[in-house]
Amino acid sequence: MSGLFISFEGIDGVGKSTQIDLLTKHLDELGRNYVQTLEPGGTELGVEIRHLLLHRKGEVAPRAEALLYAADRAHHVATMVRPALESGTDVVMDRYLDSSVAYQGAGRDLDASQIRDLSLFAVEGLLPHLTILLDLEASAALARRSKTGAEPDRLEREKTDFFETVRQGYLKLAAAEPDRFFIVDARQNVDEMAALIRARVDALIAQQ
Amino acid sequence: MSGLFISFEGIDGVGKSTQIDLLTKHLDELGRNYVQTLEPGGTELGVEIRHLLLHRKGEVAPRAEALLYAADRAHHVATMVRPALESGTDVVMDRYLDSSVAYQGAGRDLDASQIRDLSLFAVEGLLPHLTILLDLEASAALARRSKTGAEPDRLEREKTDFFETVRQGYLKLAAAEPDRFFIVDARQNVDEMAALIRARVDALIAQQ
Repeated sequence: MSGLFISFEGIDGVGKSTQIDLLTKHLDELGRNYVQTLEPGGTELGVEIRHLLLHRKGEVAPRAEALLYAADRAHHVATMVRPALESGTDVVMDRYLDSSVAYQGAGRDLDASQIRDLSLFAVEGLLPHLTILLDLEASAALARRSKTGAEPDRLEREKTDFFETVRQGYLKLAAAEPDRFFIVDARQNVDEMAALIRARVDALIAQQ
Repeated sequence: MSGLFISFEGIDGVGKSTQIDLLTKHLDELGRNYVQTLEPGGTELGVEIRHLLLHRKGEVAPRAEALLYAADRAHHVATMVRPALESGTDVVMDRYLDSSVAYQGAGRDLDASQIRDLSLFAVEGLLPHLTILLDLEASAALARRSKTGAEPDRLEREKTDFFETVRQGYLKLAAAEPDRFFIVDARQNVDEMAALIRARVDALIAQQ
């Protein structure tokens, strides 16, 4: 594989979308081919799965939810991510398997290692070269999010305690895989964060 | 759990629906409470998943397909099957996890044991008390099926070779769990098969 696979992680409200936009501008300036995509919902099938997960009225059983996220991921990786990487195209992804582990594993009552195994089965073991974790206390992230005015979806209605547990789950994952994770303190302003991310990605490119 | 959990398995065209109808009539006569359900699609969420699986135009990546079946199963068991059994209601199901192992595991290029593990994760280990396998050569089953006049779905368009491989997968599963499986030779006529199934179910009830 010659393309670089970079994922962005963090609880809702930390500013992932903004940093993804800034990083892809940087990749443009470097003249690199890339695709920008997201989970859940990076494929046509994924959009339908995302709809099932986020916008239906009834409850989804916890294991069914975990399996639907994994199905979205399996299809996304098999039909889009892996072919792109194999053709030499970089992939910049908003959320990947660490989201599932942190949100479903750490955040709810499913076992984190089972969730991870499920995702690894789904993607046949494909991990990002670099995972950028934007880290912020849940209370600060929620305060930012409430300013956007967007209608909250099912997950977004969950409480601050839940998001702080998710945040701690992310930090544990990052501690366990220090080479893959790059933690960015999201209390910094947008440009400071972008500069750190650019520097880390430039280092990764230099290693290719 | 006090309800009995009975699943019907076999390749398409062996006559599962007819035998399920006859067995539930028998349960009616015995005055037992039961629910009759099916996979995929036994719940509202399941119907949507079934639609994704059987009627969409694009291909679904093999692992995504396996995970969608498992998601349907997880939701079905958590919200319908397990509560019914715990309340003392029998559950008669058209297809359960053996279908996934036989169709996806034996029939395609996924590992059968991984498919089984996925299903067992989905249902937290819940196995039927009795699985009735209607066994028929694939060529004979396909000949029966073509008489129904129904529009074939994506799976049904697969070839005889595929169904014969699935059939062999079922027979292997039955050989590995002889206490749970009851194999019925589907070359027999409807009433002969129904009488055998009634006798086996009566024996199960007598053991309760």
